[in-house]
Amino acid sequence: MTPDLSLIDDFLRDRFATDNPLITEAVRRMLAAGGKRLRPRVLLLAAQACGADPRDHLELAAYIELIHVATLIHDDVVDNAQTRRGVNATAVDYGNRISVLAGDYLFAWIFKNVTAKYAPPIPQILSATLADICDGEVLQLRARGDLHLSMERYLEIARKKTASLFAAAAECGARAAGAGETAARALRAFGEAFGIAFQVLDDVLDLTGDERTLGKPVGNDLVERKVTAPMILALESGDTDVRALLERLYTGGDGALEVPQVAAALARSAGPGRALATLARFTEAAKHALAPLGESTAVAGLRLLADGLGA
Amino acid sequence: MTPDLSLIDDFLRDRFATDNPLITEAVRRMLAAGGKRLRPRVLLLAAQACGADPRDHLELAAYIELIHVATLIHDDVVDNAQTRRGVNATAVDYGNRISVLAGDYLFAWIFKNVTAKYAPPIPQILSATLADICDGEVLQLRARGDLHLSMERYLEIARKKTASLFAAAAECGARAAGAGETAARALRAFGEAFGIAFQVLDDVLDLTGDERTLGKPVGNDLVERKVTAPMILALESGDTDVRALLERLYTGGDGALEVPQVAAALARSAGPGRALATLARFTEAAKHALAPLGESTAVAGLRLLADGLGA
Repeated sequence: MTPDLSLIDDFLRDRFATDNPLITEAVRRMLAAGGKRLRPRVLLLAAQACGADPRDHLELAAYIELIHVATLIHDDVVDNAQTRRGVNATAVDYGNRISVLAGDYLFAWIFKNVTAKYAPPIPQILSATLADICDGEVLQLRARGDLHLSMERYLEIARKKTASLFAAAAECGARAAGAGETAARALRAFGEAFGIAFQVLDDVLDLTGDERTLGKPVGNDLVERKVTAPMILALESGDTDVRALLERLYTGGDGALEVPQVAAALARSAGPGRALATLARFTEAAKHALAPLGESTAVAGLRLLADGLGA
Repeated sequence: MTPDLSLIDDFLRDRFATDNPLITEAVRRMLAAGGKRLRPRVLLLAAQACGADPRDHLELAAYIELIHVATLIHDDVVDNAQTRRGVNATAVDYGNRISVLAGDYLFAWIFKNVTAKYAPPIPQILSATLADICDGEVLQLRARGDLHLSMERYLEIARKKTASLFAAAAECGARAAGAGETAARALRAFGEAFGIAFQVLDDVLDLTGDERTLGKPVGNDLVERKVTAPMILALESGDTDVRALLERLYTGGDGALEVPQVAAALARSAGPGRALATLARFTEAAKHALAPLGESTAVAGLRLLADGLGA
C-alpha cells in the first residue's frame, strides 16, 4: 500500500495527546487547519523504499509532522503572523506567551518520546535538525532586507531552514526501516534537494499564488522584508525597475502601502521563471539521488512528490 | 573537593559554543550577567554524594544550567520582561524573534549533545523535565489573577515549573555517577523539595528584597498578576485589607500605579512569615530525603545549600 494523507491524519487525530489539554488543543487546531503532510509522506515512502511496511512507522512520521507544527507555532510568534493556513495563528488566539510555551512543550514531548522509543541515530538526527532549522531562521532574520544576498547564501539558508527537516524525514524513514548506509544517504540527499525545491516554490507562490490557496496574503515575504529566490534572480538578471522598487520598499519608511505594487512587478519580472528553473534543477537532483534504491512503488511515489512541486 | 561556582563558570565560559555566533553571544551575555548556578551545583554534589568525582560531570552540569538559561530566554519573551539579572533581557537587545529562535536552538543543541553522550535515562529525564516546566508555566499563566488559587494548586505549579529542574539535576547527578535506585530516588526527592523551597523564597524576595539584589523590580510578580505563596498565605490568614488591595489590583483597570502600595501591604502582612515557615518545612523535607545516602562532605554540602535558602 502507498501511505496517504488520511493514514497520517487519522493517526494524528486519534493518537496525539499531551498531558496539557490547552497545548493539545492548540496543536489539534493547527493540524485541523490543513497542510499537505509532505514531511511524514516523505518519511513513510522512504521507509517503504527500504522494504518496510509504512504502517509500522506512522508514529515516527507523526513526530516529524509535529516538529514542523512546533516550528510553525513559534514562527507565528517570530513573524508576528496574523493567519496561518487561513485560520488565526496560535499566537493570535492564545497569546504569544502560550505560543512560546506550547512550542517548547511540544518539542520536549517529542524528544521525550523519540529518545524513549528510537535507537540512535534517530534522536540525534532530529535534534540536530531542529538546531539547523533555528540556525537557518536566525540567518534569514539577519539577511532581512539585504538586497545583496547571493543565491549561494540563499540556498545555504534554505538548506538549513527548510530542507533539513525533509532530509531528516527521508533519512529517519530509511534508518527506521533498518536500511544500510547507501540507502540512508541517498534518501537524505533526496530529502535535501526536495526541501530546497519546496522552499523555492513557496517563494514563487508568495508572489504568484492567491491568498485563498496560500492561506496567507500574497506578498507576505515582502511585508517581512525577506529576500527570496525570485527576488534575487530578478535582481541578478539586471532588472533595474525591480531593484528600484525593492530598494524603496526595504529601505524606505512605510513599506506596507507599496507591497501589492512591488509583488505585481516581481510577478511580471524574470524572477519567478528563473526561480522555477532553479526549482526544476533541484527536483531533478532529488530524483537522481534515488538511483541507488532501484525501482519500486515507493521510489516512484517519491519521484511523483518531487514532480508535484514543479506542477 | 567540593564543586564551586568558579569551576562551573570556567567550564561554561571556556567550553560553551554553538555553531551560531549570535546565539552563542546571547547565551554568554546571559551567563555573564550572574546567577548562583544552583542547579549545576546540586547536580555535581549529587554525583559526588554517589561516589563520583564532580569534575567528571561538569559537562552534564553545564547542560542543566543551559536548559535553565534557555527557559529564561523564552521567559523573557513570555513575560515581556525588560530586565533580567539586572541587565537588559535578551528579548530587548535582540528582539522577540531572535529570543524564540535562540531558546529553541539552545534546547536542540543541548538535546543533540545529551542524546549523543549520555545513556538512558538521562536524555529522557531532561526532556520530561522540559515538558514539566512548560506545563507548569502554562498552568501558572492560566492561574494569573486567580485569588482563589489554593496552596495545594500553587505547590503543584511550583513542583512542575521550578522544582522539576532541581529534581532532574539531582537525579541526573546520581545516574551519571552510576548510583542505585535508592540513592537516585533520594536525591530526586531532595531536588524536588529544594526546588519548591527555592520558588517560595523567590516569591518572598519579590516583596521584601531590593531591586539591586534581585536584578528585577520589587513587586514584579504583582505586575504580572501572579498569585504567589505569600499572597495565598496572607489571604488564607483572613487579611481583608490585603484581599481588598489585591482585588483592586487584579480586577481593576490600570494596576501598575498601585503595585508599590500593594507590595508594601503584602510585605507587612502575615504572608511572608507564613511563606518562610512553608519554606522551612520544604528545606527540612529536602534534608530528611538525604538520609539513605549516609554522611559525606557532599551530603553536608547539599544540606548547606538547603539551609542557605532559609538564610
